[in-house]
Amino acid sequence: MSIVHKDERILLAHGGGGSLMRGLIEDLILKRLNNPVLARLEDSAVLPPLPGGGEVTSGRLAFTTDSYVVKPLFFKGGDIGKLAVCGTVNDLAASGARPLWLTLSFIIEEGFPIDQLERIVDAVSEASGQAEVKVVAGDIKVVERGAADGLYINTSGIGVVAEGVNLSPSLIKEGDKVLVSGPIGEHGMAVIAARDQVELDIDVESDVAPLGGLVRDILDNGQAVHFLRDPTRGGLAAVLNEAASAAGLTIRLFEDKIPLKSGVKAISEMLGLDPLSLACEGRMVAIVEGKGAGKILKQMRQSPLGKEASIIGEVLSPLVARVILETKVGGRRTVDMPYGEELPRIC
Amino acid sequence: MSIVHKDERILLAHGGGGSLMRGLIEDLILKRLNNPVLARLEDSAVLPPLPGGGEVTSGRLAFTTDSYVVKPLFFKGGDIGKLAVCGTVNDLAASGARPLWLTLSFIIEEGFPIDQLERIVDAVSEASGQAEVKVVAGDIKVVERGAADGLYINTSGIGVVAEGVNLSPSLIKEGDKVLVSGPIGEHGMAVIAARDQVELDIDVESDVAPLGGLVRDILDNGQAVHFLRDPTRGGLAAVLNEAASAAGLTIRLFEDKIPLKSGVKAISEMLGLDPLSLACEGRMVAIVEGKGAGKILKQMRQSPLGKEASIIGEVLSPLVARVILETKVGGRRTVDMPYGEELPRIC
Repeated sequence: MSIVHKDERILLAHGGGGSLMRGLIEDLILKRLNNPVLARLEDSAVLPPLPGGGEVTSGRLAFTTDSYVVKPLFFKGGDIGKLAVCGTVNDLAASGARPLWLTLSFIIEEGFPIDQLERIVDAVSEASGQAEVKVVAGDIKVVERGAADGLYINTSGIGVVAEGVNLSPSLIKEGDKVLVSGPIGEHGMAVIAARDQVELDIDVESDVAPLGGLVRDILDNGQAVHFLRDPTRGGLAAVLNEAASAAGLTIRLFEDKIPLKSGVKAISEMLGLDPLSLACEGRMVAIVEGKGAGKILKQMRQSPLGKEASIIGEVLSPLVARVILETKVGGRRTVDMPYGEELPRIC
Repeated sequence: MSIVHKDERILLAHGGGGSLMRGLIEDLILKRLNNPVLARLEDSAVLPPLPGGGEVTSGRLAFTTDSYVVKPLFFKGGDIGKLAVCGTVNDLAASGARPLWLTLSFIIEEGFPIDQLERIVDAVSEASGQAEVKVVAGDIKVVERGAADGLYINTSGIGVVAEGVNLSPSLIKEGDKVLVSGPIGEHGMAVIAARDQVELDIDVESDVAPLGGLVRDILDNGQAVHFLRDPTRGGLAAVLNEAASAAGLTIRLFEDKIPLKSGVKAISEMLGLDPLSLACEGRMVAIVEGKGAGKILKQMRQSPLGKEASIIGEVLSPLVARVILETKVGGRRTVDMPYGEELPRIC
């Protein structure tokens, strides 16, 4: 699927975490920068032993990066600083790593208020404390007025994947169960609610939170966890389509099992949005051995950030549709890979 | 020195690599995110052993980040893609590390031409091959028209510092010599020349290049190298002021020993710029043991990127001025820490 042509221009949807972004990465980036680590397109790169320079005595390094362009910078439940820490910590956690170190790089528009910068760095400090990671390097660039929209942050992170931990969509098999650690779509909805143009009287708070602890808890459970991913851009729909597609299997979801707060549901219906495509920033999707699923669910629910965890689906032998949803009223629909994203600049 | 006040706004000069940026980092960032690794404010963080997750069997990890906002994106001798690889590789090299892995994160303005993106990723590919590093993870964010100026890149990098390598301004001592690996200011001048508003008929090409190999060559020379830094924003003036200040000593430079191409000299005089404050992106400053300096100069000159290396100064006991320049005509002037930067968005 070649989506990129020479005379084309970048669209907002190219950054949306859906099929258009995937096409850009495969057709443009991977063609030029291919190597076995990058080609896996996981949330973090799990690195091979250090060539010539020694190796990690126990486990492997994980390395990840994300730039944050969320608009507005402050929303109910968080801000770009908290998001930049949690998002990168969660990418490390999703690769099975214990998050350890972060870098923090700002691109700031000239004229940005310093008191807002202070609030954002305060949030970075608090979130990195909560996530038990340290910011060890950073950078500040300032661009002229009009050359950025306030402030953007990049965080990159290093973690260590303990020996014996091995996560990959290739391990997913028929009979596996699909879990999510809590209600979906709250981050996306909180950002929408914080935008000026939308007047909403329902109180939705972003779920943004660091999931290193939750992941550590469930990984203690031997080899039962096959795949982890935090559903950010493109939401549950994107993550499960990617997983099912990489595994060559089909995932069946049960609508009545998917945790969804009434506020998110109501606004989604009002605005015509699909909660399955809304971003989370503090939820983890786990695909696990069928027979271990109950135990992992229990462990998730004992974790402070997993109290509302639920088994939401199961893995079937391959059908034409990669992800299908059994609706509450007994219907069935295909959950497609989002094309772009429902709303830009959600993270 | 408190430069940051609550009611102030970010200025372009806050990103310039000079004293104003230093103040912002110390007053705003370090107060909130202090830890021993970050507080060293080196080009890369050299990491302690991995807590609980094992350690590197030989050497220590170095970790760094930089965002690139150079304007224009393409200039003589390079582009933002080559710059993003070389800048981060050189930050790792300056900490004595062998650069190994990079992440690559784009913030792209909607409407950006895909053929330009292809050229940039081609340059990333070529430069990372030359630098012997691998891009192992990445991210793409797209923002609306007007919310960025074309395209920004963040690269973060991991390298390994071999056992026995120890670089720090605290090792600098009286009698040490100051070396630079080649002519200064060419990157800064090439970017100025590429800007539409300046019409210059002199041909200056950016020096942007990866210096991992050059650094490896000179570090083979035992313990003689005390301090390395690549003079980017703020140029030689900023690097040497920082080094002298951290060491509590004074550095004397000899103007006639500082390699400077005639084109850079001519345009600097025409535009009233100080070449000592102009950015390089392919030069390394080394402060080395006095008696080993000749040998290190020879090694630098044998390296393909160090043919025009020169011993440009020496370390003296502390005077009031941190950095002084003996001019060609026999005068003497203080080289101050630049306040902001002569021109924004040079890297």
